[in-house]
Amino acid sequence: MGDQTRFDLPQSRLPKAWYNLNADMPVPMVPPLHPETKEPVTPEFLSVLSPMALLGQDVSPDAEIEIPEPVREIYRLWRPTPLFRARRLEQHLETCAHIYYKYEGVSPVGSHKPNTAVAQAFFLKDEGGKCFTTETGAGQWGSALAMACNFFDLGCEVYMVRVSYDQKPYRRHVMESFGATVYPSPSMNTAAGQSLLEANPDHPGSLGVAISEGIEAAVTSGGEKKYSLGSFLPHVLLHQTVIGQEALEQMEMAGEYPDVVIGCAGGGSNFSGIAFPFLRENLRNQRTTRLVAVEPTACPSLTRGTYTWDNADVIGMAPIIKMHTLGHTFIPPRIHAGGLRYHGMSPQVSALVDSGHIEAQAIDQVDTFEGGLMFAQTEGILPAPESNHAVRAAINEAVACRETGDEKVILFNLSGHGNFDMAAYGAYSDGTLERYEYPESEITEAMSHLPEVDFPG
Amino acid sequence: MGDQTRFDLPQSRLPKAWYNLNADMPVPMVPPLHPETKEPVTPEFLSVLSPMALLGQDVSPDAEIEIPEPVREIYRLWRPTPLFRARRLEQHLETCAHIYYKYEGVSPVGSHKPNTAVAQAFFLKDEGGKCFTTETGAGQWGSALAMACNFFDLGCEVYMVRVSYDQKPYRRHVMESFGATVYPSPSMNTAAGQSLLEANPDHPGSLGVAISEGIEAAVTSGGEKKYSLGSFLPHVLLHQTVIGQEALEQMEMAGEYPDVVIGCAGGGSNFSGIAFPFLRENLRNQRTTRLVAVEPTACPSLTRGTYTWDNADVIGMAPIIKMHTLGHTFIPPRIHAGGLRYHGMSPQVSALVDSGHIEAQAIDQVDTFEGGLMFAQTEGILPAPESNHAVRAAINEAVACRETGDEKVILFNLSGHGNFDMAAYGAYSDGTLERYEYPESEITEAMSHLPEVDFPG
Repeated sequence: MGDQTRFDLPQSRLPKAWYNLNADMPVPMVPPLHPETKEPVTPEFLSVLSPMALLGQDVSPDAEIEIPEPVREIYRLWRPTPLFRARRLEQHLETCAHIYYKYEGVSPVGSHKPNTAVAQAFFLKDEGGKCFTTETGAGQWGSALAMACNFFDLGCEVYMVRVSYDQKPYRRHVMESFGATVYPSPSMNTAAGQSLLEANPDHPGSLGVAISEGIEAAVTSGGEKKYSLGSFLPHVLLHQTVIGQEALEQMEMAGEYPDVVIGCAGGGSNFSGIAFPFLRENLRNQRTTRLVAVEPTACPSLTRGTYTWDNADVIGMAPIIKMHTLGHTFIPPRIHAGGLRYHGMSPQVSALVDSGHIEAQAIDQVDTFEGGLMFAQTEGILPAPESNHAVRAAINEAVACRETGDEKVILFNLSGHGNFDMAAYGAYSDGTLERYEYPESEITEAMSHLPEVDFPG
Repeated sequence: MGDQTRFDLPQSRLPKAWYNLNADMPVPMVPPLHPETKEPVTPEFLSVLSPMALLGQDVSPDAEIEIPEPVREIYRLWRPTPLFRARRLEQHLETCAHIYYKYEGVSPVGSHKPNTAVAQAFFLKDEGGKCFTTETGAGQWGSALAMACNFFDLGCEVYMVRVSYDQKPYRRHVMESFGATVYPSPSMNTAAGQSLLEANPDHPGSLGVAISEGIEAAVTSGGEKKYSLGSFLPHVLLHQTVIGQEALEQMEMAGEYPDVVIGCAGGGSNFSGIAFPFLRENLRNQRTTRLVAVEPTACPSLTRGTYTWDNADVIGMAPIIKMHTLGHTFIPPRIHAGGLRYHGMSPQVSALVDSGHIEAQAIDQVDTFEGGLMFAQTEGILPAPESNHAVRAAINEAVACRETGDEKVILFNLSGHGNFDMAAYGAYSDGTLERYEYPESEITEAMSHLPEVDFPG
């Protein structure tokens, strides 16, 4: 079928293992440091936060880590996800490039997030755990973890950035429908939240603050609760590699191989999910696919941040990480891509950008929505604001091909749908969506609060 | 695989033809009547409203009507849709029944509606048409038609019930993202709207009023615009039969045959879409599957209405139809299942309920949300409020099997997801969702305004 637009894998091709980049990592990695001692964290420190299986995955050298059957059983509710060739978009752009997208919005909560949420909930349950605490911005991650905990009969305690809690009750209703308890953050539940609310009773919250609260709630629970993170950590990126593994097979069905693979990047997990299996092919099989991580100009950790040691959270309860960062005191403006508003970046992605294995781009939100709307009008799907960054980068690549006549094969990850983000599309249509270029002075200011670290790296 | 939960058809099994029940209709049908002459409508009258191809489908005796390739090409963006066995729900209910559901929420706008929207837009374009007018309640139908018109480069003018327009801007943003023009109804665009607004500037609107406006806008356009309806008419039910045809094959993959097939019913199209191919098997091959249409107690046209002649719209511009009706002046309460708030019912479904080929049930919205939440917590998908009626009826069947030990095979149509309806789930969780039993006196009052018709039937 020469004009096929959709490439479906049969159920039998659902991956049996996650791909672990540790096995092929082309650059040395440094460990996370304890926020006070500034020495490598101990397993004891981390085990208060995370199930042991996940900590083991973070440092495992094995290239393949088996996906437990109960996780695969739940994956089958929406996986394998479809891969599409965007023929209508190509025609609209009058490009000779071939544009493919992997669509993760078919999951029950509408994004790639359940790929790791289900895995994390399984391992917590497996170790006799009772409850996960976590943070969420607009609610994509909270919804996914709420659903996953519900499946494994675990409690789920979500600290939701207050401004989203107040302005966007719908995602909260999703979480509550799955039995989660949702608190506006900062909350009175934690010492961190209390101190912020005392200083400012109207504190709007931020992802960094919500992370601190989630961590504190776990650490002070006497072992009752563990803390779950929806991006950033190696095991989260690992779980997302089902995306790229499926995409590799589906590109083979399409009879093509991508010249460039694109994903949006906040903490780095959906980007890594699609990119790492192709990076493996670059490293092992002399492929030369460009891997492009796309971030907002309003939170440009990869393109304008520094690769250095910084706190992963605002309060300083989480480890200090070597990563691309804008400074942990940086509070990004309230752009609509709430999932891309984090001051740092996954240490693996950071190291690979630093080494040149991965490219980084920043795009303004107004341009991303222009791209998203063009995508919707040609392909029918309204992307999430985060995904619009990947959409726009793919469109830019395809437009460049129109100029050069290059028949490039472009693959991007459409990480979720925009059903819960229509207010943002309304703002774009009304012309009230703001451009945002972060002033250099503010980055300099935030970078003056980095922790002092002597550890080599 | 004895424990398979998902049954996917390959792309190659996308139906090539719609199934036309006219060929097997076991009871005689009467024609629509002109609202003034009360004689059968002429093709001239109808052709002002609808593309000729659709009018031809309404009366075609052919069992199969070919699906044009450009329509199939767009269907492939989300079809064939998955069929699931709800094993977790079965376990939760401790039932020996087998519960299957066909999931139409994977379409770009999240419901079954694009199945007909895309077909209608194709035929309008094919006849050189320029624009569709239509009505929408909460916006499911308007979103689908907006997307379809966008694909075929047609204008789309949507009259949206004012209370939804004001309270639920998100669906409007979806329609506008696809390039549609959306008016709150009643509007000043039409004589019908003007007269209602003069009488009551705060008129909240209703589906019946919005239908009148959509029709008037088409009729007075001098041929520029045609009117599209998203349910009720034979060609709409016809286009939805892709659902049941796929389900027939998928049940065969599962090695089972349904004892009962369930769908929610407002105008009747998603119910008919899944049920008619099974009705064909009942009629041709001596199958005895029960076919159950489920409506809200707040708008009980099938269970408490009368099978008689009534106006299809409020103002009296549309034909008079023999159908189950609560009276065209009936304004149903504002339940959250906006798609089930129509005073009448598809003439085909009405005739088949009257003849006993189809069963009808009414369920209160509070009970439907209880069912929907149970479904979400076991299967992961939050259903649309309309779909919750089918979910609850399926649960009731399965619970009855627990009592009797009957190993019934139950199939229902999960017509859409509830992503745009989370306020309703919030209301259910808060305990503020109201039960609604329509008082007999109000039905009697509305039924006193039926048109007087001498035509036999």
